[in-house]
Amino acid sequence: MDVTPPSTRLSATARTRLGRQRDRARLDRAALYEVLDAGMICHLGVIVNGAPTVIPTGYGRIGDTLFVHGSTANRALRGAAGAEICVTVTHLDGVVLARSIFHHSVNYRSAVIYGTPRVVDDPREKLDALQAISERLAPGQWNVVRPPNRKELAATTVVAVPLAEASVKVRRGPPGDEDEDYALEVWAGVLPVRQVFGDPVPDPRLRAGIPVPPHIAGR
Amino acid sequence: MDVTPPSTRLSATARTRLGRQRDRARLDRAALYEVLDAGMICHLGVIVNGAPTVIPTGYGRIGDTLFVHGSTANRALRGAAGAEICVTVTHLDGVVLARSIFHHSVNYRSAVIYGTPRVVDDPREKLDALQAISERLAPGQWNVVRPPNRKELAATTVVAVPLAEASVKVRRGPPGDEDEDYALEVWAGVLPVRQVFGDPVPDPRLRAGIPVPPHIAGR
Repeated sequence: MDVTPPSTRLSATARTRLGRQRDRARLDRAALYEVLDAGMICHLGVIVNGAPTVIPTGYGRIGDTLFVHGSTANRALRGAAGAEICVTVTHLDGVVLARSIFHHSVNYRSAVIYGTPRVVDDPREKLDALQAISERLAPGQWNVVRPPNRKELAATTVVAVPLAEASVKVRRGPPGDEDEDYALEVWAGVLPVRQVFGDPVPDPRLRAGIPVPPHIAGR
Repeated sequence: MDVTPPSTRLSATARTRLGRQRDRARLDRAALYEVLDAGMICHLGVIVNGAPTVIPTGYGRIGDTLFVHGSTANRALRGAAGAEICVTVTHLDGVVLARSIFHHSVNYRSAVIYGTPRVVDDPREKLDALQAISERLAPGQWNVVRPPNRKELAATTVVAVPLAEASVKVRRGPPGDEDEDYALEVWAGVLPVRQVFGDPVPDPRLRAGIPVPPHIAGR
């Protein structure tokens, strides 16, 4: 049963140290950027008290550095300082409906990044990192809302992970059935899945006369 | 900066051992089921060679047991037998746009489950688990496509995790801004996010005259 090729392919593939083989690495890197730059949240894996913990959180990218933050992933993140973490971004693109249960699958794009994080202490880098994280989730907001003040910055932990060790996996297209199953009287194909935005819902406390700005209305 | 309350709240909350306090536990369990039964994929965290790995994969639930499978999460799953794993299901429901960067956030529902998996060897339980996983991803398919044969079953690893230790987090509603920021000339509110299905795309090798069945067309 192949309902979950993501895990399959991810775990079947040796981790790729990007940058070793020039052309392949360039392709991999473009694919990695594409997956990361299309997402809003990641799943962060850390070891806490000897056991894995996976938490959804925000992230951003500047060049070849991935930033993960938490006012509050604090405990997990600070605890993980110096220890390897894993950051996974997954886009579910479709349900692959095959002629057999075994070949059911999903179309998806995923990036799995491994690295040892460092805490970002430099104020300039921290602000840049927060902007990158903010742009991922809410592009265009950084320049129109109140920026973080000193107290808020202090309450926020940002860690940086180099985009050095990563695995990018993509599945696209129709099911791959067993030869003899193509004769079955069963519909097969792909049910596309995508994430969409609804109409903006104003804060009940919004002051009168403030319109939805284009960078929000137009998403 | 509160762009990532999921991680915040998740890590700030002590793990809840469901079932200890009766009424609270009943609520928690209903919320847990609701989050799990609304998802198609989870993020599975395991420790491989001392480092965390987070992979997207399929899952299913029967009563108070969570099943995770992989033809192929094999390596990770088999390797993790007897060791604690973490399974996280996250639904992103909206981008919370505040009047300050710090209070940007997301509306979401997430379930984080901790447990020590056992490999499902009993053929009857394995088949039931695979059906539950299949129903999560592609409801209605189990009874209309070719069932798994002996070889396919052998190629599939299924593990079971009791739904005993879990953390459910939900954020809904408008931003929570600082009192003085409500006076700012800034739009604030929520941009809803949801996952939708597109029109079914037939397999190019689909035999002529097989219509899209209602359980697929109607999702």
